[in-house]
Amino acid sequence: MANKDIFQPQWIKEAPVKGSYRSIFKYGDPKGFKHPNDMLFQELKEKFKLTEDDFREKETTGNEIVDISIESKLSVAQIDKFIEICGKENVSSKEYDRLKFSSGKTVEESMKLRRNKIGLISDLAVHPRNKAEISEIVKYCNKEIIPIYVYSGGSSVNFGYYPEKGGITLVISTHLNKIVKLNELNQTVTVEAGMMGPAFEEALNNSPKLYGSKHKFTCGHFPQSFEYSTVGGWFVTLGSGQQSSYYGDAGDLVLGVEMISPSGNIITKEYPATATGPKVLDIIKGSEGIFGIVVELTWKIYRHQPENRQYFSFIFPNWDAAVNATREISQGEFGMPAVFRISDAEETHHGLKLYGIENTVYDKLMILKGFKPMERCLFLGTADGEKQFTKNIKSNVKKICKKHGAMNLTSFPVKKWEPGRYKDPYLREDLMDYGIVIDTLETGVSWDNLHQVHQQCRDFVKSRPDTICLTHASHFYEQGTNLYFIFIIKENDIKAYIDFQEGLLDKIQKSGGSLSHHHGVGRMIAKWMPEHLGENQMNVLRSLKQHFDPNNIMNPGKQLIGG
Amino acid sequence: MANKDIFQPQWIKEAPVKGSYRSIFKYGDPKGFKHPNDMLFQELKEKFKLTEDDFREKETTGNEIVDISIESKLSVAQIDKFIEICGKENVSSKEYDRLKFSSGKTVEESMKLRRNKIGLISDLAVHPRNKAEISEIVKYCNKEIIPIYVYSGGSSVNFGYYPEKGGITLVISTHLNKIVKLNELNQTVTVEAGMMGPAFEEALNNSPKLYGSKHKFTCGHFPQSFEYSTVGGWFVTLGSGQQSSYYGDAGDLVLGVEMISPSGNIITKEYPATATGPKVLDIIKGSEGIFGIVVELTWKIYRHQPENRQYFSFIFPNWDAAVNATREISQGEFGMPAVFRISDAEETHHGLKLYGIENTVYDKLMILKGFKPMERCLFLGTADGEKQFTKNIKSNVKKICKKHGAMNLTSFPVKKWEPGRYKDPYLREDLMDYGIVIDTLETGVSWDNLHQVHQQCRDFVKSRPDTICLTHASHFYEQGTNLYFIFIIKENDIKAYIDFQEGLLDKIQKSGGSLSHHHGVGRMIAKWMPEHLGENQMNVLRSLKQHFDPNNIMNPGKQLIGG
Repeated sequence: MANKDIFQPQWIKEAPVKGSYRSIFKYGDPKGFKHPNDMLFQELKEKFKLTEDDFREKETTGNEIVDISIESKLSVAQIDKFIEICGKENVSSKEYDRLKFSSGKTVEESMKLRRNKIGLISDLAVHPRNKAEISEIVKYCNKEIIPIYVYSGGSSVNFGYYPEKGGITLVISTHLNKIVKLNELNQTVTVEAGMMGPAFEEALNNSPKLYGSKHKFTCGHFPQSFEYSTVGGWFVTLGSGQQSSYYGDAGDLVLGVEMISPSGNIITKEYPATATGPKVLDIIKGSEGIFGIVVELTWKIYRHQPENRQYFSFIFPNWDAAVNATREISQGEFGMPAVFRISDAEETHHGLKLYGIENTVYDKLMILKGFKPMERCLFLGTADGEKQFTKNIKSNVKKICKKHGAMNLTSFPVKKWEPGRYKDPYLREDLMDYGIVIDTLETGVSWDNLHQVHQQCRDFVKSRPDTICLTHASHFYEQGTNLYFIFIIKENDIKAYIDFQEGLLDKIQKSGGSLSHHHGVGRMIAKWMPEHLGENQMNVLRSLKQHFDPNNIMNPGKQLIGG
Repeated sequence: MANKDIFQPQWIKEAPVKGSYRSIFKYGDPKGFKHPNDMLFQELKEKFKLTEDDFREKETTGNEIVDISIESKLSVAQIDKFIEICGKENVSSKEYDRLKFSSGKTVEESMKLRRNKIGLISDLAVHPRNKAEISEIVKYCNKEIIPIYVYSGGSSVNFGYYPEKGGITLVISTHLNKIVKLNELNQTVTVEAGMMGPAFEEALNNSPKLYGSKHKFTCGHFPQSFEYSTVGGWFVTLGSGQQSSYYGDAGDLVLGVEMISPSGNIITKEYPATATGPKVLDIIKGSEGIFGIVVELTWKIYRHQPENRQYFSFIFPNWDAAVNATREISQGEFGMPAVFRISDAEETHHGLKLYGIENTVYDKLMILKGFKPMERCLFLGTADGEKQFTKNIKSNVKKICKKHGAMNLTSFPVKKWEPGRYKDPYLREDLMDYGIVIDTLETGVSWDNLHQVHQQCRDFVKSRPDTICLTHASHFYEQGTNLYFIFIIKENDIKAYIDFQEGLLDKIQKSGGSLSHHHGVGRMIAKWMPEHLGENQMNVLRSLKQHFDPNNIMNPGKQLIGG
């Protein structure tokens, strides 16, 4: 998209230096990039009052080699034990490996690693080959009181892997990444927890060839981190995909699990429904490794029928109209769209740039019809399912959008959005090279507090001078939706950044939103949990923790902080 | 329906004698009856080799006055305390009341009460007026170690109220039976736990008048016990309604609860979704009062649009074809029917009689087209939702049924079934007056073990001579369904009856079904739980019990038996 006549910074176009900090914090494919386009770049310059000169030299790159020496606190005998269990090639005490598998993809980690600052790192990276080895490791660690963290896809945005109390990190995506069995009759697939999104989906799409099934299948779960997250991670963090309004959230998509915990192994049975409550499967949902390690899951699958997919996009005169229309759609009982997202005025402004719609005939028509920049709001949607079902969704959506004053933008914008939907996180590295931070926080809201949460959080973000705040709602339910805040700031000071982020979390909580809609809790959000849930609910979770993991070796220092 | 020329027994047509055992065990409206019609009566006579003479005198009626004297084990001071909290008029130590509120609607209880045999009864019946009183009672009972049982709708079929360890029974349907607020924006209603089904649904249907809402609403939950069960009961026992395939099971329909427990009160927040797991709301689902008392619930509501409802019925050549078709419908991704049920060959045989279809033009046409009695299987369905959505479901259902060899029976049979759908339990009293027992057990199954569970359970039931066994599947999911077994036997011996029932529960478990799809666990099924869940899962539940209720005063002796 870059116009050769316009100045553009020298965005880094090479994979990070091998063994560097950047190779650890860079999101996704080492050779994957999404550079800011001209329009975005111009806008950032204006917003942050920067000149071209500010983009001639990078502030940080993190391309320095990780050259640190931090002794493992494990004894030689302990390390030998892990080697005995998993084989020499699956155990590493190298500092680089230990740092890598202790790091997620938070902005804070990135800011620090760019400055070659590191926090705690685990004492050993271990790549178990199967669940029997994990079981043996958990038993051994429980005896020796060695904490265990689990690393799978690597895209945690809340310090999910942070080794608060030292110990070992199990990298389960290295070996536990296969489909165990596909059951076409039940429409389920049993899969090892460390299988990555793309391999999982590809196998399901090709199931007639691979498993002799009659139908092709889809997993239905496509978070932005799809390419760098795993089936087990989706489940234990209560993730949601970009088509969740139709397929359900990760917690809804799992029929059974196998979990290995210090207090014993749990295998839940795969009934489509059972009234033998309370259900231990439900208790494991969202447990983020603090009770045990989910090693295998039975996942609900759906028919893969892209030929039936319908696409639609609309522009609304304002946010109120967009919210009212999506509420009416969500409560309309004609089935839910799959992709289903509305952007507020500021995000729409940027979205039209990012998806290449600004200055097209669509944009001109919008202006002509009175849809004003910084007021108008974009709606993108698709429908999955049976042919007439998807057509009927589209026809109802059209009717409702029209009623709320929207203009039909056809399928063009959503089709522009779709191919790049996993790529937005790649913008981060380019911007941070020049001291610009792009980050996100998100919350679950009811219809009746959506506007309050949106407004108060925006007000907070905007109280910081020169801050971009983009918001969308992208997971819909009859009772409400989520709000996903993207903020872009010029900030070099790590402490100032953290203060800002914590301020927004505070505001989310105080304005009535859930602390997290689908990013999970981890270490980052843990300190808000007691106020969020109240002491009595915290005590329920603590009692479960005490039961599953009396020695507090499972991912200590996360949801329950000390516990 | 009775033909005056044909002999019919003198079915009881009057309400039970006031103060009698019958007034306790009779299901439903004291003046509500559904007498066996001629065809059913003839069939029973033949099956059980009975003559008209066997129906001239009733074996038991239970119409004897409850005249027992069982001292309450509570002290005068304790009783005074409950009077102080709830008012004199809301506390009863009368034996009749204590027996009534300790009794559910199991066949075993009915067999015993008919013979004036009673088990344990609670020491006091208390009708709290609000949740503050319940809170005070729980605190007091926890201090004094007085067990608490909760009675609401009264239709438990697993000894849910049985006062295993003495103590008090809280009757929460007496006062806690109102809607607290209706939130049209969120499409939720907050309701006290003891509100009965019909009052709840009527208020929702009339919400424009009562709450000034724009739309009429429905609760979407219509179990067979609808008229004698409560919103709180639906939730804590993980119930399912007859339209659950569309609206979801009770566990899916609740967004938030307030629960009072010895370890403190829990109020979960009402997010449509949140990734701050594990969720205490999920832990309370199906807890059947062993952790605490659910006093208030926020329930998801749906648009009440009977004008859009579609009705359809089909006859299949056999059970395999019916199962294959319903699986294809469930996995077809065009939306789920609301009422969705298939009857196996034996139930179809009876259903056609019961719904008045035998000997109609439909029956003749079926025979003509080769749908053989005792092979053919009936499918009844409706679709709820938006107009085109329901039409599209019907059109897809038609196509799939035809493909599987079914004949369209139009809406006639399902419309015959619908008005009487809460009335079948009333048959029980008439039959038991003459020593004939009709009872049910049910299970959740996956598609891949449905036939095995069905066949093995039928084989077991049929291994008892002269036994009628009717089976239907009536709650559908992409991954499976339920099997609901109705068995009719001639049996006067209580022990023999229990042995038979336990044998069937054993068979359900051994053949791979869930111990309960929607009846819950209670005391009856508890002893199968350890094998069902395994020791490790039982220990998770025990640790929760220990946390919520360290003195084991909340509904002791149920799911966790001793615990």
